[in-house]
Amino acid sequence: MSERGLLIVLSGPSGVGKGTVRKAIFSKPNTKFQYSISMTTRKPREGEIDGVDYFFKSREEFEVLIKNNKLLEWAEYVGNYYGTPVDYVEQTLQDGKDVFLEIEVQGALQVRNAFPEGLFIFLAPPSLKELKNRIVTRGTESDDLILNRMRVAKEEIEMMDAYDYVVENDQVDLACERINAIVIAEHLKRERVAARYKNMLEVDF
Amino acid sequence: MSERGLLIVLSGPSGVGKGTVRKAIFSKPNTKFQYSISMTTRKPREGEIDGVDYFFKSREEFEVLIKNNKLLEWAEYVGNYYGTPVDYVEQTLQDGKDVFLEIEVQGALQVRNAFPEGLFIFLAPPSLKELKNRIVTRGTESDDLILNRMRVAKEEIEMMDAYDYVVENDQVDLACERINAIVIAEHLKRERVAARYKNMLEVDF
Repeated sequence: MSERGLLIVLSGPSGVGKGTVRKAIFSKPNTKFQYSISMTTRKPREGEIDGVDYFFKSREEFEVLIKNNKLLEWAEYVGNYYGTPVDYVEQTLQDGKDVFLEIEVQGALQVRNAFPEGLFIFLAPPSLKELKNRIVTRGTESDDLILNRMRVAKEEIEMMDAYDYVVENDQVDLACERINAIVIAEHLKRERVAARYKNMLEVDF
Repeated sequence: MSERGLLIVLSGPSGVGKGTVRKAIFSKPNTKFQYSISMTTRKPREGEIDGVDYFFKSREEFEVLIKNNKLLEWAEYVGNYYGTPVDYVEQTLQDGKDVFLEIEVQGALQVRNAFPEGLFIFLAPPSLKELKNRIVTRGTESDDLILNRMRVAKEEIEMMDAYDYVVENDQVDLACERINAIVIAEHLKRERVAARYKNMLEVDF
């Protein structure tokens, strides 16, 4: 029987670059994580593909899934639903593979309740000024939405306490390296591996 | 004021290759750890240099240091004393540098009492058979000593529970990478970095 996989949750304030970091991690050929694609009712941004970046759903479809308890977490955020289908996550963990979730802060807190043993990583901006720059540069938001996002971002940074690790996204490659180091370390925690070694002692030398 | 450094303690059964792994880590040009050289009363092995591999002391000199409380930990092991001078470790941590200790299991347990916040890494052999091979191949021990070391090694593996992480020494380079990942992850733990980020929120955007 293989060891149960880790649930890795990458989250952080809107605009911090979660999607960019996630794509960089999954662009590496040796990545062993299984990516859990989120569902959303927001409109695809240019270049985003259904079933790759997100499952894009209507509000009606999404609400049926909520009602049937088929979402590990879901949230309404700036007028749109976001969520994670639960069955896929549970099956993948049972198969011994690490599942990688990239989700909004509200959703991460729900996952923390359902999977307290998960690995919760908060992606942080180098500064609030830099976060604002990134949101403005993205150019998809109106001034009002930008101010709203910044207010939400401040609240989200205060939720950092619910996370296990904080990774600064100063450079995408560095952020990826830090996340990989965290996952390697987590697999080496004594609680996870001690049993395997204790079995050694049953064998004669 | 710089953040206090981490105390990294690498330990594990005799013969597992602690010294080899430690040397490999410190042979890398980008290693940021400060190595804390141990003291011992055992005779230097071929190639070992006083003040580099160990401080080699007489039993009389060592016992004076024990009496004056100048050792963070010490142990008598297979007829010889081993220990760690305390002042150097404390000063280096205060300067914000990570201190790297490579010590025997008995000593690591003493350090755990004095520095419970330290990072305790257990270096494990791939198997007990492989551990015996390594001790025999080293060729510095008699048959009686080998059997004694194996008995002690089994006891030491049972002490794994006092450690935070377990790293298998199947290949020296892999063991080094795992140890580096653990240290990177430990520096990213939310408890260590949250205060720095909370300060962001005091600044206006």
